[in-house]
Amino acid sequence: MSERAVSIVDVGPRDGFQAIAAFIPTATKIDMIARLHAAGVRRVEATAFVSDKAVPQMADAAEILAASRDLPGLDVQVLTPNVRYAEKAIGAGARHIAFVLSVSEKHNLNNVRRLPADSAAEYATLAKTVGDQTRIRLNVATAFDCPFDGPLAPEQTLALLEHLVESSPDAEVALCDTTGRVTPDRVRSLFETAMTRLPLVSRWAFHGHDTYGLGVANVLAAYDAGVRVFDASFAGLGGCPFAPGATGNVATEDVVWTFEQMGVRTGIDVAALISVARDGAALPDACSGGRVRQAVLMAQARETG
Amino acid sequence: MSERAVSIVDVGPRDGFQAIAAFIPTATKIDMIARLHAAGVRRVEATAFVSDKAVPQMADAAEILAASRDLPGLDVQVLTPNVRYAEKAIGAGARHIAFVLSVSEKHNLNNVRRLPADSAAEYATLAKTVGDQTRIRLNVATAFDCPFDGPLAPEQTLALLEHLVESSPDAEVALCDTTGRVTPDRVRSLFETAMTRLPLVSRWAFHGHDTYGLGVANVLAAYDAGVRVFDASFAGLGGCPFAPGATGNVATEDVVWTFEQMGVRTGIDVAALISVARDGAALPDACSGGRVRQAVLMAQARETG
Repeated sequence: MSERAVSIVDVGPRDGFQAIAAFIPTATKIDMIARLHAAGVRRVEATAFVSDKAVPQMADAAEILAASRDLPGLDVQVLTPNVRYAEKAIGAGARHIAFVLSVSEKHNLNNVRRLPADSAAEYATLAKTVGDQTRIRLNVATAFDCPFDGPLAPEQTLALLEHLVESSPDAEVALCDTTGRVTPDRVRSLFETAMTRLPLVSRWAFHGHDTYGLGVANVLAAYDAGVRVFDASFAGLGGCPFAPGATGNVATEDVVWTFEQMGVRTGIDVAALISVARDGAALPDACSGGRVRQAVLMAQARETG
Repeated sequence: MSERAVSIVDVGPRDGFQAIAAFIPTATKIDMIARLHAAGVRRVEATAFVSDKAVPQMADAAEILAASRDLPGLDVQVLTPNVRYAEKAIGAGARHIAFVLSVSEKHNLNNVRRLPADSAAEYATLAKTVGDQTRIRLNVATAFDCPFDGPLAPEQTLALLEHLVESSPDAEVALCDTTGRVTPDRVRSLFETAMTRLPLVSRWAFHGHDTYGLGVANVLAAYDAGVRVFDASFAGLGGCPFAPGATGNVATEDVVWTFEQMGVRTGIDVAALISVARDGAALPDACSGGRVRQAVLMAQARETG
């Protein structure tokens, strides 16, 4: 049997920390990224280059990027909302840029005050600007479901994808379940169709949320369709089921634990990951998620005493 | 497209309530069973006929059974540990008896102080005793994984199953993931093999736990294999990730919500189910689980307020 493996992108340092109101000391952020790296994580979304005023938690983006880039073998991805901030990130040393836009008109307007077509044009410019030395991750939000309009027709997502892929065929494309409401059958189906219709895309990724308990189920459905890159957030940081509109990312430890149980290699040590996830969950104002962290810690407590 | 449907067995009134230390007033239990029924639940594990001394929470079994049997169209299943208690249950009006034994030697010894072969012999006697008017649900615990010994070889489970099915080919057989540690690939695989090897079994069921966040994922894997009967517990009652050795059942509302999103009919009204699940989660000493309850209640709070 050939070895099966997946790549996990821990988006906790960006998507997770951004959801926390209280400013996390820069040294704490850097320490947690270093511990994720020590646990075997080889790709993180470390920070975002955005307006300090709009997102104060990301005000230390340049410091976080500088510290993360020193960790051997770590692929450091940073989120940028537009060309201007992408240039700033690249100037600060970024070599992997993430860009996000929504398929849903209402969600895109709500998120970045633009129509999806205008965001697609911005993306086309960004793809030209960044140059050959910088990789691009394209995050397609509300690819399945919109918080305002409910389920999206697959054709709507596919039409936008076809347009986007022309701008940058080399980009890795992540289909994002923004609401956590999509079911595994639809995840598998859309990826299978997209892979057939867009054979030029070299790498697909899945970004899911665990709001309705389907986080890992949807990851496995994407895996069945052939996806091998998965976003997840240590401690399930990235939202809170109790906060209006916020929804938690699938927990990295749940995804890693499940794949390792299935014999699919992640390269990540579950015990070391749970140790940093425990501390992430304990950050002031943090709202954590996932099940594996508590289950494993309880099992350890039983065994040791 | 032909209509797709599943049958949900809410085991909360037995498996869930039994995990709660403080005695739940009999009237409260009866009220919750009635509300589950009103929500569209058509099958419950209502109580257990067992030693009052060993399980004080189930001391009101006869009253619970009598009240539940009056609800129109409700299939009321009761758990019995042996022939003696099965006879007592049938004397009290039970028409659907559930029996449990473990594939794992250590787990069966720990649970009922017998070897699996001795429990199988008890089951054979019970199957003969109950007569044609009484249906049997056979629960095969640790069918995939044992809390003491870890993963079981599929052949060990299949060998015991072959022996058990001879005793009562008409019984519905539930494969139970006792620890919550099995992954969807193994759930699907064991059911597919069992269905091929034991074509006489007319109905298969899956009973899973959500300890590691795989509750719904495993339900869907069993569904993919052809299983159409699923145990679940409203509010995810039936254990606690914080309590030594205890693990929570998959929440009925998570299972129902997911199937309904997929267009698979459960006959259960999610809103009415969540209402009783909310009260179940609020029972003194209760340890609840699942994600859908909180996600839906929060979405409602946002819309109304």
